[in-house]
Amino acid sequence: MAKLRDIGEFGLIQRLESILPAKVSKKWTQGIGDDTAVRRLPGGVHELFTQDILLEGVHFLPGNLARWEEIGWKALAVNLSDIAAMGGEPIGALVGLGLPSSAKVEEVEALYRGIAKCSKKYSCPVIGGDTNASKGGWVISATVLGETRQRPLLRRSARAGDSLWVTGDLGSAALGWKLMQRRKSPVDAQPFLKRFLTPEPRMDWGRLLAKSGMVGACIDVSDGLAGDLGHLSRASGLGFDVDLNRLPRHLAFSKLCASMKLKPYELLLAGGEDYELLFTVRAGKETAFQKLPLSRGVKVACIGRARDGTGIRWLEDGIGMKQKPRGFRHF
Amino acid sequence: MAKLRDIGEFGLIQRLESILPAKVSKKWTQGIGDDTAVRRLPGGVHELFTQDILLEGVHFLPGNLARWEEIGWKALAVNLSDIAAMGGEPIGALVGLGLPSSAKVEEVEALYRGIAKCSKKYSCPVIGGDTNASKGGWVISATVLGETRQRPLLRRSARAGDSLWVTGDLGSAALGWKLMQRRKSPVDAQPFLKRFLTPEPRMDWGRLLAKSGMVGACIDVSDGLAGDLGHLSRASGLGFDVDLNRLPRHLAFSKLCASMKLKPYELLLAGGEDYELLFTVRAGKETAFQKLPLSRGVKVACIGRARDGTGIRWLEDGIGMKQKPRGFRHF
Repeated sequence: MAKLRDIGEFGLIQRLESILPAKVSKKWTQGIGDDTAVRRLPGGVHELFTQDILLEGVHFLPGNLARWEEIGWKALAVNLSDIAAMGGEPIGALVGLGLPSSAKVEEVEALYRGIAKCSKKYSCPVIGGDTNASKGGWVISATVLGETRQRPLLRRSARAGDSLWVTGDLGSAALGWKLMQRRKSPVDAQPFLKRFLTPEPRMDWGRLLAKSGMVGACIDVSDGLAGDLGHLSRASGLGFDVDLNRLPRHLAFSKLCASMKLKPYELLLAGGEDYELLFTVRAGKETAFQKLPLSRGVKVACIGRARDGTGIRWLEDGIGMKQKPRGFRHF
Repeated sequence: MAKLRDIGEFGLIQRLESILPAKVSKKWTQGIGDDTAVRRLPGGVHELFTQDILLEGVHFLPGNLARWEEIGWKALAVNLSDIAAMGGEPIGALVGLGLPSSAKVEEVEALYRGIAKCSKKYSCPVIGGDTNASKGGWVISATVLGETRQRPLLRRSARAGDSLWVTGDLGSAALGWKLMQRRKSPVDAQPFLKRFLTPEPRMDWGRLLAKSGMVGACIDVSDGLAGDLGHLSRASGLGFDVDLNRLPRHLAFSKLCASMKLKPYELLLAGGEDYELLFTVRAGKETAFQKLPLSRGVKVACIGRARDGTGIRWLEDGIGMKQKPRGFRHF
């Protein structure tokens, strides 16, 4: 029988989609294939619905109690990032747990303190869940319900000529992960560790993008820029040109990469877990877009443009790269 | 540090609830503590929101491809049962997977065929999900969104004097599980295996109960009658008297229990996985209730009555039992 690694995560998802009934109720304006599912409610409201599972050994490694708090935060934050990518507000969350017999009450409580912190900061009450024993490792499954009165920001809505933008900076979380793996803690490590351990979903930006009326497509960068731009590209049926020199990086990023002998473009393009928003702005709206009130000091950078065709052209001073970078593969 | 088994599943849930912010947005009329969370939508609609995780080795054991189909069915069916217990209609489902490296593509496809069958039968489209590698066993996390235009059937709405009813029969799934464990397949085993492997959520009954206007509290029996009646009892602040001789059983139940040397009341009260609806009917409405059109041949039985006070009195020909039965404990 075929192994999962032979067909990859996206090959598997395609096969699974073909098994499900093709016709989904008209209530759903977006099913599988975007950051969240979308259905229309009375009164011009779009409801958003998303789920992410965090698994021990794959998405996190257990540690001390402080670490459990961070894992709890992240379990909710990565789901909120999907709501942000649609331009929505969170309404509530369900949190399901699978707990190995070795799990301590204090660890579960620390995990929940982290969930509660994130829940409070982003006004997303935990309104239910499910608690189970696990024969494997820890399992944390969070589902978030959201809403927007604006048109949701879909992956398929880019047009040729749109400019391509990203919030914040890229590669910081991946660098944080490398620092943790190598147990390094240089003086400027803190912001990178924080980005990896307790990402901040870009809720303010998502809201602003949806209200602006100038945005085409949007996605959150969870698999890495290359992988997620690939999703935008396929969903919109367009190619993209990206200027690698314009990819936003943290001030200390290049220096730390050099001292750790890391290839910066691997982290920038395929590191993953950035949880920034990647979106397009309609052609000719760039100047107006830049005059929007920028939210809470998180900047945006224009990094490329959508064009007719397919695929992504990675340009460095106008020259294409030889090796194609790719996103994190699960299998 | 404290072990989970010292405080039990419900002790843990109480601790976790105390960590979450006490105030939940007014949008939610029901948070943690019922079969689903409930929020009010415009136009008199109540939205329902529930999640259940199935874990390898805890909720299911992997087997041949036919078995994977059954596991897929069950992952969705147990969530639909929660929607039925609130009197709701399913609207859509998210299905998240954690797949060990040993998982075969054909196994995942078989799992999805089972999900698709249940999805089609109960008109609950799968509109999203999340697919991950797992370092432990298989993880299936399903979330279902539902709706009702009626008042949702809560656990806390029983009143003293209400009669207590249950749909279908009890203990059949537990007997099916015992048959599987012992690898027995007597001639009349099939209905019991089916009840354990591919439970049918009581959607028709849930709908009818909500519309009848005669029902007080309702819950689905997943942990076993004793455990779930305990939930009704605590949520409603009432005691219950239950007549053990009136517990509904499948025609072949007693004979099979005898031939396998199983104690019938252990299966009837604490077996779990029945996925029947347990509910109360307002005092004086019993006769009118019995005149309701019964749905699809699934019968109901009156098994007891709610009273002022606390706790459950198990009566057999009017005499209390010495040993208190209990529901399935996760830790």
